[in-house]
Amino acid sequence: MTLTLDRQRFVETMQTQAEIGGTDAGGLHRLALSDEDKRVRDWFYEQLEAAGLSVRVDGFGNMFGRREGKRSIEPVLVGSHLDSQPRGGIYDGALGVVAALEFVRHLNDRDIETERPIEVVNWTNEEGSRFQPTLQGSGVWAGVHDLQAQYGATDEDGHTVEEELERIGYKGEESAEPREAYDSYLELHVEQGPYLEGNGMDVGVVTGIVGLTWGAITYYGESNHSGATPMHHRSDALVGASDVITQVRRIPSKLGERTVGTVGFVDVDPNSINIIPGEVTFTYGFRDPDRSVLERAEDCVLREADAAADREGLEWEHEDRADADPVSFPDRCVDAVEGAADDLGYESMRIFSGGVHDATHVYEVCDVGMVFAVSEDGKSHTEAEYTSWEDCHSAANTLASAALELANDTA
Amino acid sequence: MTLTLDRQRFVETMQTQAEIGGTDAGGLHRLALSDEDKRVRDWFYEQLEAAGLSVRVDGFGNMFGRREGKRSIEPVLVGSHLDSQPRGGIYDGALGVVAALEFVRHLNDRDIETERPIEVVNWTNEEGSRFQPTLQGSGVWAGVHDLQAQYGATDEDGHTVEEELERIGYKGEESAEPREAYDSYLELHVEQGPYLEGNGMDVGVVTGIVGLTWGAITYYGESNHSGATPMHHRSDALVGASDVITQVRRIPSKLGERTVGTVGFVDVDPNSINIIPGEVTFTYGFRDPDRSVLERAEDCVLREADAAADREGLEWEHEDRADADPVSFPDRCVDAVEGAADDLGYESMRIFSGGVHDATHVYEVCDVGMVFAVSEDGKSHTEAEYTSWEDCHSAANTLASAALELANDTA
Repeated sequence: MTLTLDRQRFVETMQTQAEIGGTDAGGLHRLALSDEDKRVRDWFYEQLEAAGLSVRVDGFGNMFGRREGKRSIEPVLVGSHLDSQPRGGIYDGALGVVAALEFVRHLNDRDIETERPIEVVNWTNEEGSRFQPTLQGSGVWAGVHDLQAQYGATDEDGHTVEEELERIGYKGEESAEPREAYDSYLELHVEQGPYLEGNGMDVGVVTGIVGLTWGAITYYGESNHSGATPMHHRSDALVGASDVITQVRRIPSKLGERTVGTVGFVDVDPNSINIIPGEVTFTYGFRDPDRSVLERAEDCVLREADAAADREGLEWEHEDRADADPVSFPDRCVDAVEGAADDLGYESMRIFSGGVHDATHVYEVCDVGMVFAVSEDGKSHTEAEYTSWEDCHSAANTLASAALELANDTA
Repeated sequence: MTLTLDRQRFVETMQTQAEIGGTDAGGLHRLALSDEDKRVRDWFYEQLEAAGLSVRVDGFGNMFGRREGKRSIEPVLVGSHLDSQPRGGIYDGALGVVAALEFVRHLNDRDIETERPIEVVNWTNEEGSRFQPTLQGSGVWAGVHDLQAQYGATDEDGHTVEEELERIGYKGEESAEPREAYDSYLELHVEQGPYLEGNGMDVGVVTGIVGLTWGAITYYGESNHSGATPMHHRSDALVGASDVITQVRRIPSKLGERTVGTVGFVDVDPNSINIIPGEVTFTYGFRDPDRSVLERAEDCVLREADAAADREGLEWEHEDRADADPVSFPDRCVDAVEGAADDLGYESMRIFSGGVHDATHVYEVCDVGMVFAVSEDGKSHTEAEYTSWEDCHSAANTLASAALELANDTA
């Protein structure tokens, strides 16, 4: 049985949420636990209640709206996140929450009862922009992160997560953990990559989430006068860093089709036109669906770092920053999403997610699956992020139909 | 005739100046036109007067102390600068000013009259740290820079040079230009490079100052999600910059024995571990004694920048930052310095200066020459800058003896 959601109401709901923290350039600036986040939460709370759901907020601000099933068994969880990147897009996260909300509204409209209870969720601080780490709310809920430690995470102004949860009134009564066993979790998210559009697809069937390994390297050379110091007397920390950055561009090409490697951050000291850089720190990150590829990538970058240090006469240090194993979604969730897309007549393809999502952590609690919506030009984390309403609607219908399937699957 | 200065008084004078703005680590923090600069200027003013010199301060704060000669003809100018780098060393600049002061004290002690007048000078803002450009005071005085434009130069807090000159009481009455023709200018400075120490020399005979070409390149790529964006969809501005930085390390090796090339400054946007850098600006600088080598170096770097942009799919811009022709000192000044070192029994070598000095601008006004003192490990612009008192004294004696030679040369 497939569901086709009320497109006009769905689009209007997307537009309404996009006004809360909306930017002049048509993007969204709604950082976790900010005033804008409070406003969108208040609005979302009302929508859940208006849809007849019983609403709970847990101690980490994760919001749940429950629609009972015919039977009191493990629920199906559906949702995503309402926080945004700084000057980000209006689809990233919000599309998945609005689709989940529209799904239960649609069940109400058509008086459809499901075997399993359904819960709609908005996870706290998926983005990790204002407070680190990313996926914070789902990570606490799934037991991956310690509640007290995450309460203490601070933003640039020194405010803690706990203070800000209290300030905006979203430090809930409920314990921030699964209060029962869950059957499954489905999440709709924009792809944030170019594959679906490039292949002319309507919707993506996510089969898993890549793993990642992040680290930082610091080179220690010698700051000196850029004119009076001959080349053979130099130990230039930036030359070492540049050698490695060039290699990070090349390393993925010999490891895997989907391997990516990025240096996103560089800090140069003293950073003056006229002084040889004495100290440079830079980060690196690799992602791949295969754990062993990540290990090889890290081996490669550390070998290159050592070679560059040796060439340039530098001391160096390495620091691990993050590490996540690839996740492969269970067949029943992948099949439910793929079957729904097929039944709806959509062109779909199986795709591994290059970004992490709350599903990464929820995977620790229950079966998970994801639907991807087309991202035009693969753009995300920018105001220019765009998905047509047609593509949003297709992905939402796929989510709803797959979730209905799981909610009635009691085999 | 050679002069051997009173070593104890000379060292004590060096130590006294080093206390004004001295740092706990034994360095000097005496930025141009700061309170510390005012204090060292007040002290220096007193020393000039105590030595019987007639003191003038020009409209840009350059300080002159004049000792009359037997004849009223073109004077010999001797000096350097008293301002320092942020947390710089106690020798850079100050050694040349103290040596010039000790030179006239010594003439006084021994009742030596010279044919030509002698003027001791302290140039305003040689370092260019607080206010740009470097060599500001000598540049205005020599007519290289426009007075009004340089008055308007601002520091990070928005204070102008003119305001700060007035605030510390060093915007003098005298016009900031040569008030008569000068015979010659001699400057003692620390080498700031490793050649003298590496060759076991007592003192350096500077034959000229390298030219330089400085510029900045900005790459425009596309900021995007570091996980979801496949390698072949990326235009990573930092990869382009790193390619060029690597080449700036290599380019000098095929151009000249003394060619140096440096990338000292990099600015990455958005500079986040998880985002592909969309925009990167970096500077480059080359120096060489030969103008044509500088032109070739700049050609090379722009060609490399274009190739890197092409490889990575980047737009780019180039901005000229500075350009200075190499200066070759006239034989009579070089010979005077070399002859003085020989007569004093010092091991000396001829050396091209890799850094610019006030002599670069004074060259527009009269003949110039320079003496280099040994820099241990070539370190400068750091609190670890070091020259032994023995080496300071040798260089000062060479300066004094060469200046005396020029002051009596009326041929």
